[in-house]
Amino acid sequence: MKDAFLQACRGIRPTYTPVWFMRQAGRYMPEYQKIRQKYDFLTMCKTPEIAAEVTMQPVKILNVDAAILFSDILIPLEAMGFKIEFADSSGPKVSPTVRTGSDLKNLRPVELPIINFVFETIKILTKELDVPLIGFSASPFTLATYVIEGRSSKEFINTKRFIFSEPESFHNLMEILTDATIQYLIEQAKAGVHAIQIFDTWAGILSPYDYEVFCKPYVKKIVEKLKSYVPVIYFCSNTSGLLHHIKDLEVDVVSLDWRSDIRDACLTLNFQPLQGNLDPLVLLGRENEIFKRIKNLLIQAQCAKSHIFNLGHGVNINTSVDVLKKVVDFIHEFRF
Amino acid sequence: MKDAFLQACRGIRPTYTPVWFMRQAGRYMPEYQKIRQKYDFLTMCKTPEIAAEVTMQPVKILNVDAAILFSDILIPLEAMGFKIEFADSSGPKVSPTVRTGSDLKNLRPVELPIINFVFETIKILTKELDVPLIGFSASPFTLATYVIEGRSSKEFINTKRFIFSEPESFHNLMEILTDATIQYLIEQAKAGVHAIQIFDTWAGILSPYDYEVFCKPYVKKIVEKLKSYVPVIYFCSNTSGLLHHIKDLEVDVVSLDWRSDIRDACLTLNFQPLQGNLDPLVLLGRENEIFKRIKNLLIQAQCAKSHIFNLGHGVNINTSVDVLKKVVDFIHEFRF
Repeated sequence: MKDAFLQACRGIRPTYTPVWFMRQAGRYMPEYQKIRQKYDFLTMCKTPEIAAEVTMQPVKILNVDAAILFSDILIPLEAMGFKIEFADSSGPKVSPTVRTGSDLKNLRPVELPIINFVFETIKILTKELDVPLIGFSASPFTLATYVIEGRSSKEFINTKRFIFSEPESFHNLMEILTDATIQYLIEQAKAGVHAIQIFDTWAGILSPYDYEVFCKPYVKKIVEKLKSYVPVIYFCSNTSGLLHHIKDLEVDVVSLDWRSDIRDACLTLNFQPLQGNLDPLVLLGRENEIFKRIKNLLIQAQCAKSHIFNLGHGVNINTSVDVLKKVVDFIHEFRF
Repeated sequence: MKDAFLQACRGIRPTYTPVWFMRQAGRYMPEYQKIRQKYDFLTMCKTPEIAAEVTMQPVKILNVDAAILFSDILIPLEAMGFKIEFADSSGPKVSPTVRTGSDLKNLRPVELPIINFVFETIKILTKELDVPLIGFSASPFTLATYVIEGRSSKEFINTKRFIFSEPESFHNLMEILTDATIQYLIEQAKAGVHAIQIFDTWAGILSPYDYEVFCKPYVKKIVEKLKSYVPVIYFCSNTSGLLHHIKDLEVDVVSLDWRSDIRDACLTLNFQPLQGNLDPLVLLGRENEIFKRIKNLLIQAQCAKSHIFNLGHGVNINTSVDVLKKVVDFIHEFRF
């Protein structure tokens, strides 16, 4: 198995910079679209052969150094008895919502057999892939936002009303979601993933104080439990003002969005391995602008113990497959 | 005239911390709603007597230390021949859009008499108010996002495609919008505003590199031109990773959103006067949580040369007028 990605996760610099892309299995790719035309998104997630196939597509087509399990951050909520739906345009929906302390009594303990398809997909993939497989989950806070809002949100009014009105009950919700996430991720590790990424997609809506109190302790608990199994990557977005807290999480790799200068982040995060952080929309621009920014990023990321190239967010649907191929080749061939 | 706010703008600490709220004239207030039921938003902006009345409402009702002109950041685009519309639910719309270098030829020079209602409103207010009046505009970059997208956006794909595909033409657009903004703000100063605030609402979508190249030089040019007239406040959002650049703008006051720890910002910004930065949704919570956070913020902001209390974003529509009154009283009475 190609091991550049896992070396970088452990703080070793391989001979070339490993690269993968968040949402590398997605609608920008004609091979993915062909399958997506036949099945809805949830069916794809829940059918191990299909999920495995689309997980492998970008490895074959783009030559990336890691695969990421094709799934969704909301899947573990099904194992807790929530209903999740993906209507085409309006984004995911979760029901019933949990908006007050008294709603907590409706929460059910996680039953992982309900989502056994996830672990079946992982078992297929670890046999087929020649690159490491990344498992993942949302952070408990990001999961909480969906459980509370019932959908993605702009201002997260219900989430914040809950936090600022009933902080004790919010902590109780976070405990429950943290325990479920730990069980879910340990099961992924046992099924064979080589690393896991925690997506804290919405951590950036919190002030540093509220992040420290209501989000950080729960991520830290997951990291402590998971680190003995596989390396842990922590993806956060809109969190340039939280990096001094993120340092304390002691994850193996911090994955940054494009809003942080990677050299500043490197200093604040005490030189730990970094993943990221090109603005994904740069890839819609002209080639000299793309490669100028990638070259600068590769050089600036030398500051960190090791670097995994990635975007600061998922691949945009308008991205050209040819451009992505060129980007992978450029990064693999780049020597400092 | 009460001068605590202007003292703080100049880096002097008055005997109490001055306070005002972004979007303090707004739909959370029954007195505002009463007028809004009779007139649409644009009519309110364009009728000096009405705009002046709603500007004064929060000064009378909440006892805040500054008034901010009731207007919209898109108004100067009308003086450049754009059509702006405010449909009730979908947000503002601007037409025609400017998305490529070749669209630039359609841009018209600014004709300020078209928006003379703004300066008339200011003249009424400076006679009536017993607190300083803040004028404002969007930053040229934020204005550019509306001109390019035609509306507010989630990912700003058209804006970034323009930047990364035709950077030279994007610079040309920024030059034109910067010149228009300078003329607009100087005219506000001449009409009598006591300070101006530049809203760089969308600067936070840029990477630090792109902010430095495509946004910062244009704000700096405005600041250089305006500083001899009135103090300049720079409001930025999602910009915790840009503060080292924002320091170079040499504005009088930096207004922060809630995503920065005000002590960290204070150090990065070399102790300059700060405005902000309570998460506006804290005000939807229970009172002990509200006042705990306000007290911490007031103490932490002691680090800066001076501090103007504000929210990190506009007042949320669900906010209680009574809570806002209590917040103003608490801040005025707080002694260190």
